[in-house]
Amino acid sequence: MNSGFTVWWDQKTGSIGYIDQTLLPNEERIVECRSIRRLAKAIQRLEIRGAPALGVAGAFGILLAASRCRKKTLEPFLAAVARDAAMLRSTRPTAVNLGWGIDRVLDAMMDAPDVPGAQAAALTEAEKIFSEDTVCCHAIGEHGAPLLPDTCTILTHCNAGALACSSWGTALGVIRSAVKIGKTVSVIACETRPLLQGSRLTAWELARDGIPITVITDSMTAHVMRSGTIDAVIVGADRICGDAVFNKIGTYMHAVLARHHKIPFYVAAPLSTFDLTRKAREVVIEERGRAEIATIGNRTFLPPGVPVQNPAFDATPVNLVSAIITEKGIIRPPFTMNDMKQGRTK
Amino acid sequence: MNSGFTVWWDQKTGSIGYIDQTLLPNEERIVECRSIRRLAKAIQRLEIRGAPALGVAGAFGILLAASRCRKKTLEPFLAAVARDAAMLRSTRPTAVNLGWGIDRVLDAMMDAPDVPGAQAAALTEAEKIFSEDTVCCHAIGEHGAPLLPDTCTILTHCNAGALACSSWGTALGVIRSAVKIGKTVSVIACETRPLLQGSRLTAWELARDGIPITVITDSMTAHVMRSGTIDAVIVGADRICGDAVFNKIGTYMHAVLARHHKIPFYVAAPLSTFDLTRKAREVVIEERGRAEIATIGNRTFLPPGVPVQNPAFDATPVNLVSAIITEKGIIRPPFTMNDMKQGRTK
Repeated sequence: MNSGFTVWWDQKTGSIGYIDQTLLPNEERIVECRSIRRLAKAIQRLEIRGAPALGVAGAFGILLAASRCRKKTLEPFLAAVARDAAMLRSTRPTAVNLGWGIDRVLDAMMDAPDVPGAQAAALTEAEKIFSEDTVCCHAIGEHGAPLLPDTCTILTHCNAGALACSSWGTALGVIRSAVKIGKTVSVIACETRPLLQGSRLTAWELARDGIPITVITDSMTAHVMRSGTIDAVIVGADRICGDAVFNKIGTYMHAVLARHHKIPFYVAAPLSTFDLTRKAREVVIEERGRAEIATIGNRTFLPPGVPVQNPAFDATPVNLVSAIITEKGIIRPPFTMNDMKQGRTK
Repeated sequence: MNSGFTVWWDQKTGSIGYIDQTLLPNEERIVECRSIRRLAKAIQRLEIRGAPALGVAGAFGILLAASRCRKKTLEPFLAAVARDAAMLRSTRPTAVNLGWGIDRVLDAMMDAPDVPGAQAAALTEAEKIFSEDTVCCHAIGEHGAPLLPDTCTILTHCNAGALACSSWGTALGVIRSAVKIGKTVSVIACETRPLLQGSRLTAWELARDGIPITVITDSMTAHVMRSGTIDAVIVGADRICGDAVFNKIGTYMHAVLARHHKIPFYVAAPLSTFDLTRKAREVVIEERGRAEIATIGNRTFLPPGVPVQNPAFDATPVNLVSAIITEKGIIRPPFTMNDMKQGRTK
């Protein structure tokens, strides 16, 4: 059923299957999702997370909405699916891929002559997005692998691995591809508070693959960099504007620290993550709830009434980025709009 | 019994009283400690922590050892106390104050004519260290308060507050003194993984005092600094060498980020924290266990077998420090050996 994927379409039951990532690494539970409301909840709760995986989930979400819709004529059918799409899109404001996946499937249905035709178009397009994602991650990995020294230690933040995509991963895809071509790569994963995607997900993925992995708290990065053991930082991205990369909170910190210690700082992401129509200051950074910081497991560490800030993402100005690795190649500074559109520097 | 202190001597029972800081903010449990082994365990488990508080605990530890020793003649008495002192000193290698408090009381006993005389000298010296600590924190606060703008937001890391001293605090002492002279200070506390002294202790202390406090994860510092809301960073110290300040892991990260964002970075610490005989590279950084990172509360977030790094401290080169605030005044760059010895810049 799963075959190593993070989120997939089950044609037999007409449902979305996914691994509930909130339960990892302690439990590997597969959820069969049969309603768009359940999918929206899964995305809000981060049962499914990671920018490319959200693109795939958005696409399958529209396919699910289209499959389940009982309207018989095209106009009310498309209107109903569009309402579901709007609801799904609003679940997470910062990652661009969710909306991108939704829009691709909506667009594919537009020229259909009738409801069955629209449903068939949704299936074709969603499955295409799903398989493109894996191809894309492998291409990112192949372009990025030559950037890494033959023997190296790479620092990463959050999880930009197979669990953040359909499979293989973006940042971890580069690491996997480097290992595949014979490089000796060790990884240091920052635990990534508040939700510990580094210790829960990245450590779980890489340990399974037999890639050496050590976990540190986010506050240890500078100390470890100063000790001289980090050869490069690689992270994923949730949205890349012309002037900044949005990614998990803490990414900007790593970028500043990497610059201070003269360590390359790489971003690995598919072109579906790019949003060149917007400036960084126009992007809404999702603010999540107090409980994520106050309570860990079932214990509360914060005194009652003490407020928190909990931005889920931060913006790293592109001048701190050494290169962006895409499925088309490598974009190098000064990151011209033309290079960003092409996905590589000519 | 407690009267707002963190660690104290109970003359009636001949024991050390302290608040078990591992249980805060959920429980305020006072421990009556009657043996040097129990004290050593309390220090290892961080039931008592914070450099100045460790100085006081070290002093009371020697007083406890002296009070409980059954040897009747001076030489075996002093030898037994010295053995206890060596055991106590080895509990935490990085903070200098523990050894400093131990040595002051040991030295005070040296000239005593007999065992009762040595015990009396230990009592006098330990109580002196205890009361000096409060006086010292207030002096640090008074010297530091003028550095803060009249209305400001201060970022701090870990807990350099009343709980890290006998009372008042070093970094938080500066904040308390600024509030006392009428300044409007808001505080942003980094939670301070792995042991969350920021959210558990600093938030608890400041909320009690009615000083506005917001908690963030350690990874959010750079993002919050970039937003322009932080006017200064103030931290404590566990050991100040001529070339670097040792403090809770994460401090060096804040110092680099403060420099990048052109924000002053202050260290507040008593002269007992200074160790000018050593270079930073000679100092052992305590490495603590895997469980502190893998398990939070009663839940484990790290897959079995995945290793961690867990240094308890890091070293911040003095060139990243804007000023060191001591009980004698303010030491300003370039931090000459003479100024460091005086505790202020002439």
